[in-house]
Amino acid sequence: MAGEITGRLQDGKVRVGQAAISELYEQGYFGKPSGNVLELSLVEAAYLLDRSKIKVDSEGIELDFKSFFQLSSALEKGLEIKYVVYKDLRERGYYVQPGKPDFRVYPRGGHPGKTAAEFYVFVLSERMSLPLQELVEATMLAGQMRKKLMIAIVDEESDITFYEARKKIISGRTDHNVQGGMATLLDDRVMLWDPDASRGLHKHGFFGKLVDERLQLSLVESAYLLDRGLIKLVDRSGASVDIRRLMEQARCIENDFDTKYEVYRDLRNHKLVVKTGFKFGTHFRVYKNVESLEKIQHSEYLVHTVPKDHVFLPPVLSRAVRLAHSVKKQMIFAYSDGEVKYLEIKRLRP
Amino acid sequence: MAGEITGRLQDGKVRVGQAAISELYEQGYFGKPSGNVLELSLVEAAYLLDRSKIKVDSEGIELDFKSFFQLSSALEKGLEIKYVVYKDLRERGYYVQPGKPDFRVYPRGGHPGKTAAEFYVFVLSERMSLPLQELVEATMLAGQMRKKLMIAIVDEESDITFYEARKKIISGRTDHNVQGGMATLLDDRVMLWDPDASRGLHKHGFFGKLVDERLQLSLVESAYLLDRGLIKLVDRSGASVDIRRLMEQARCIENDFDTKYEVYRDLRNHKLVVKTGFKFGTHFRVYKNVESLEKIQHSEYLVHTVPKDHVFLPPVLSRAVRLAHSVKKQMIFAYSDGEVKYLEIKRLRP
Repeated sequence: MAGEITGRLQDGKVRVGQAAISELYEQGYFGKPSGNVLELSLVEAAYLLDRSKIKVDSEGIELDFKSFFQLSSALEKGLEIKYVVYKDLRERGYYVQPGKPDFRVYPRGGHPGKTAAEFYVFVLSERMSLPLQELVEATMLAGQMRKKLMIAIVDEESDITFYEARKKIISGRTDHNVQGGMATLLDDRVMLWDPDASRGLHKHGFFGKLVDERLQLSLVESAYLLDRGLIKLVDRSGASVDIRRLMEQARCIENDFDTKYEVYRDLRNHKLVVKTGFKFGTHFRVYKNVESLEKIQHSEYLVHTVPKDHVFLPPVLSRAVRLAHSVKKQMIFAYSDGEVKYLEIKRLRP
Repeated sequence: MAGEITGRLQDGKVRVGQAAISELYEQGYFGKPSGNVLELSLVEAAYLLDRSKIKVDSEGIELDFKSFFQLSSALEKGLEIKYVVYKDLRERGYYVQPGKPDFRVYPRGGHPGKTAAEFYVFVLSERMSLPLQELVEATMLAGQMRKKLMIAIVDEESDITFYEARKKIISGRTDHNVQGGMATLLDDRVMLWDPDASRGLHKHGFFGKLVDERLQLSLVESAYLLDRGLIKLVDRSGASVDIRRLMEQARCIENDFDTKYEVYRDLRNHKLVVKTGFKFGTHFRVYKNVESLEKIQHSEYLVHTVPKDHVFLPPVLSRAVRLAHSVKKQMIFAYSDGEVKYLEIKRLRP
């Protein structure tokens, strides 16, 4: 039946007559019925044209795939990458409709009229940047509509990687309230000298690292313990160091110290155990529970702190999520807009 | 025999008398004999003091570990982190001596006087930055002295990750010299329309991605093929696009396009098959050989292009190497100082 249906390209849409509604819409959920015509998006029309399901003419001239595709890609920004994603999802057996931000995808076995869409899809080239705020808004919008947010990133060779982004609420079960004692601020770390206090803080709450019998604490750990009154801090000359002075010195060493500390404190206050994520290239690795140092479970989360106005670059995002996945942890980005919030980004395999 | 030997702290060294040479140097290779005294570095002295092998006095006053360590860390920048690395290597059973950049490490079973050192060790805090040029120079110096270069990065909790950096020469076995034909430049990729040419270029050399019967080429692939005369390129209006115009447009899309292209071309000229490394967060994944598309081996290398004046941040480096390791590939950084050079960085487990 190839090409019995002819659509007309006009105003960035391809319109086919009423007769096509039963074949294209009712059988395949292509397009959007509008009065007595069916409106196809350029992506849908390219897909149908390539499968010889329709013909397309523009001002009386029939367009072959190449001409239609070149024309369409000039009319609609990013058409090439949307086409790649649309085609991929269709060929996996999903019903896909144009929508906000780019597509709506129905759950397997579902279709328009029968079920609600499961995903909102956001299509992105690996070269585009993705502002955190845009991602957060899309996540919230999807959440309000009870959809999930799918991000489809098309790399320069037109391979697609799918992600899901969602708001995350995390908390743990580890209490800690152990007195530490007197510690000395060195260049970029803190040394607690007393062996008993060192063991205590390390055992309950998994603070610092024991180097022989002494505990080396990181700046962020020290700030937290100092702020909660669990250690006392002096400098090399023996002069007392308060939280304000510690924060000042820490800021000189790490310029994102404040955000990092805010997130550390929030995680600890939610009874999570927080350690450096350096080996994974993130700020923190996070445990829900550390019952004893002899049998430490693997950490559940990698948490990376980003400023509120952060802009994700797809290759960097890809690396972080891939690495977290390879060590069986969840990748979580933390930011603060007055309160600390968490965004999980994970790989999807639709 | 605790503390029978007493050293004197002076001018940033601890000097012990001739009697100590046999106990400390000949049995443990601590310090450097100089005339009839043994000179210990501050790190060595701290290590011996903590083990009660020596006592240390400064101007007639005996120093306990805490006092000595605080004093030393004020005298020598980065002493805390050097101490952590020194102690770790010693406890693993290696003989370690002060040297350039920070330590020399002898092979297992070897020691000064018997064997040459195996590694030069460069100690770094995770917060310090590491300029590519400094790393390249250290690698070259080590290479000239027939040593390997070990980089020990100490994270904020005093855990150490060891890396080896070395110059890498890579080449493959894949020839490619297939005519492509006429292609169209779209926004940020290129479409080759002819099915036979598409199949040919994809099969021999693994260029592009087949989308149905058409081949989508990346900008870097297109530049290479165009430059070698293997494709002809037109824009949407049908006007011819030469390599200069393609490069100009590509630069607007990717501002590091020139370096990236230079590395791509060098790798292809060395008969390697080069594809995007997006899924791994690097510029390229590289195959030594692709004999047929049906049985593509895993790629051997991840190659990331950096400018000549690049500065590595340890967390970013850590993530790249860790990710490459988790997918069993070698992590290689490529830069150009007139010609393209490659630096492999891998995890070491001493």
